Amino acid sequence: MTSERETIDILPNSTDLLRLIAEGDVAAANAFFDLLDASDTVLVMSRLPSESRTALLSIIGAERGAKLIENLPEPQLIEAVEDLTPYDAAKILEEFPSDAQADVIGGLDIDAATAIIEELRTEDARDVARLTSYDDSVAGGLMVTEYLSYEEGKTVADVIADLGHNAETYADYDIQYAYVTDHTGVLSGVLRMRDLLLAPRLRPLQRIMIPSPQSVRDLLPLEELVRFFDQNKFFGAPVVDENGLLVGVLQRSAVEAAVADDLDAMYRSSQGIVGGEELRSMPLLLRSRRRLSWLSINVVLNLIAASIIAFNQDTLEAVIALAVFLPIISDMSGCSGNQAVAVSMRELTLGVIRPTEIARTVLAEAALGVINGLALGLLVGVVALLWKGDMWLGLVVGCALMANTIVAVCIGGAVPLILKRMKVDPALAAGPILTTITDMCGFFIVLTLAKALIDKLA
Amino acid sequence: MTSERETIDILPNSTDLLRLIAEGDVAAANAFFDLLDASDTVLVMSRLPSESRTALLSIIGAERGAKLIENLPEPQLIEAVEDLTPYDAAKILEEFPSDAQADVIGGLDIDAATAIIEELRTEDARDVARLTSYDDSVAGGLMVTEYLSYEEGKTVADVIADLGHNAETYADYDIQYAYVTDHTGVLSGVLRMRDLLLAPRLRPLQRIMIPSPQSVRDLLPLEELVRFFDQNKFFGAPVVDENGLLVGVLQRSAVEAAVADDLDAMYRSSQGIVGGEELRSMPLLLRSRRRLSWLSINVVLNLIAASIIAFNQDTLEAVIALAVFLPIISDMSGCSGNQAVAVSMRELTLGVIRPTEIARTVLAEAALGVINGLALGLLVGVVALLWKGDMWLGLVVGCALMANTIVAVCIGGAVPLILKRMKVDPALAAGPILTTITDMCGFFIVLTLAKALIDKLA
Repeated sequence: MTSERETIDILPNSTDLLRLIAEGDVAAANAFFDLLDASDTVLVMSRLPSESRTALLSIIGAERGAKLIENLPEPQLIEAVEDLTPYDAAKILEEFPSDAQADVIGGLDIDAATAIIEELRTEDARDVARLTSYDDSVAGGLMVTEYLSYEEGKTVADVIADLGHNAETYADYDIQYAYVTDHTGVLSGVLRMRDLLLAPRLRPLQRIMIPSPQSVRDLLPLEELVRFFDQNKFFGAPVVDENGLLVGVLQRSAVEAAVADDLDAMYRSSQGIVGGEELRSMPLLLRSRRRLSWLSINVVLNLIAASIIAFNQDTLEAVIALAVFLPIISDMSGCSGNQAVAVSMRELTLGVIRPTEIARTVLAEAALGVINGLALGLLVGVVALLWKGDMWLGLVVGCALMANTIVAVCIGGAVPLILKRMKVDPALAAGPILTTITDMCGFFIVLTLAKALIDKLA
Repeated sequence: MTSERETIDILPNSTDLLRLIAEGDVAAANAFFDLLDASDTVLVMSRLPSESRTALLSIIGAERGAKLIENLPEPQLIEAVEDLTPYDAAKILEEFPSDAQADVIGGLDIDAATAIIEELRTEDARDVARLTSYDDSVAGGLMVTEYLSYEEGKTVADVIADLGHNAETYADYDIQYAYVTDHTGVLSGVLRMRDLLLAPRLRPLQRIMIPSPQSVRDLLPLEELVRFFDQNKFFGAPVVDENGLLVGVLQRSAVEAAVADDLDAMYRSSQGIVGGEELRSMPLLLRSRRRLSWLSINVVLNLIAASIIAFNQDTLEAVIALAVFLPIISDMSGCSGNQAVAVSMRELTLGVIRPTEIARTVLAEAALGVINGLALGLLVGVVALLWKGDMWLGLVVGCALMANTIVAVCIGGAVPLILKRMKVDPALAAGPILTTITDMCGFFIVLTLAKALIDKLA
């Protein structure tokens, strides 16, 4: 992040970029972007008004156009493509690798997608159709269709000739391996480039390939793919369908990138950004509605939890000082519980805990809850004692916080496991469930304790 | 996650694995692990008592031993290596790729690290020394030292002969590219394997290499590396030091994995797991202390925020119903603010906002805050009205929540940018700062409003 630099000088509205685009001055527009690095390009393109962006992309040429938008956040990238004519969109998308093509086209509405696919080169159209038929989180949705494959009867010389003829096409391919199939397209072997180098030119591939190679099924989910690449030190693996047909190649880096996307979604969910990624360039009402969908659930849960206070209003009236500590107990229990949630999420990801092992988790958390509850309860209890000079107030508040810390860590530890078993996204649901339960418990414990000791407190 | 499966049958204490280890029955231990898949192996190894783990690793052979521990969570992997004799540890680590070797050795204390490095093969020791001298988040700390390099005077035939002689060593290398250096080791070109195939055998590398190849400096930070691989569709890039000497190769997948690690750390920080990763297998007091370091800051901030309530206790005493709404205002403002934090974090990562653009962010959030504040304020205000039949109570509570929602989203949006400029980790600090300010504001607004309208409310 070039945080120190002033941005005013590169923003489109402060330059003549808009004018260049309006005038259709391609040379000057090219010169403008030549001066920008990748991060400035993203910033400028992300803020260009949509009409100017469309005009720019339709005049600047497919290759440059693809470079200008390829690093935009996905929602903006999809919008940029959607605004183009199907022909312009197809020309730009043909510059993208197959997995990126499929991501964009999969994000368009069906009519736009169909119109663009019709304009694509036949082989690109076929690849996109294949890739978009898969879910994003399985091997088929993450693979690329740019790979080398040869029938097993071909010779080393055939391969070398093909590499020579298609050097241009293969420039961006990962060609450490080539894949060998039988005449029906079923994967039968893997060919290492260096074995090609060492082999006599007329030898058939069948004799130098590694037979029965490891492959992944097209429907294998991300979790299993991570495990596959943990076990096998491959940079890529062939992807096959149910009949063993070779359909693509999955690169290790694509799996790593998908894991990063998942973690990113987990963070967003845990912070209440749900129903899709949000960028501030999106329409205000869309952003507002998405955030409210999450907030409205939380406010209802909050009202339910607060009803515990309402039911004990007489106790609170008698010991008004308790009102100061209710938000503290609520917030601190939330903090303690969220820590336990995070540890459970991590242990699930690492595979050192199974979703069934709830008792084990709760025990480990309870032990920690006793220590941390004691520490926090003592601190807050002493503050209460010093503030009001009332030992009983300190006792009630301190004991309540201690007890509720234990409740919070046990629930926080268990909830992600339970949600995982129920196939609900733990990052999304654990927070609200946790805070509602711990709030209710916390309010109940402190007010019930106070009621029991009301004679001492008043 | 094989959530449905019962775990009891594969856990070490329910099997005879411990007995096999005690008896030193290597064949039976091998047979035991042959039956486990990768995820079961992680689970079993992560729960094996440390003496048994050490005994197992010292008898089962380096190659199998490396497989048993390579997928353990890093803290457990480091502990497992630390418990071995330096000789056993070195033999196992020699089975790891250089970046993984460096990660483990970099995590050991200095004496243990030195003892193990002394037992390593000379070239491994040299590579580890080089890699551990770099920070984990720069190219030098993420690169591998397993790559092919040749001096520019060599011929195609020399390379082919070398590939043939060292096929075993190169088995796990990414050899799509070989790197070409001058006689001092300065990177001068990149050699594509397929160009080797097409070239006459006696041609010197100088004539078929791609000269002046793109490379990354060893000290380039992760952020810049992400940008480099966004701009360049390479699967790997040569890493050079300040003198242009080739020191390693950085793979795209290593950069993607480092991004995932960063996102994971961001999620943990935002949930209050700080000072290092936590696994429940770690000592209770260490876990407790790390969590308390975070909680103790929060409890102090909470007490400061609650002091606003304490100062307005007379108002609260007059309108006790307000006590029910204080935790709701606190919690809902926290939720709204955290959403804004998440969006700012995301926009920073994507590069569509600069840390300097605070006004822009606050404006975008304020607009949204008005809408969401109205919606939430109306809902909670109506609940207050219906509950007590008191329009004024509804008005006070509703207006306070509305106003504080606007405050919360503005602060939530701005804080990550400000922290980024101050070079403080936003994931770590944004939450506590946000909730403290919004709590104080929220309590202040509701109690001040109530005080002003005390005649109507009482």
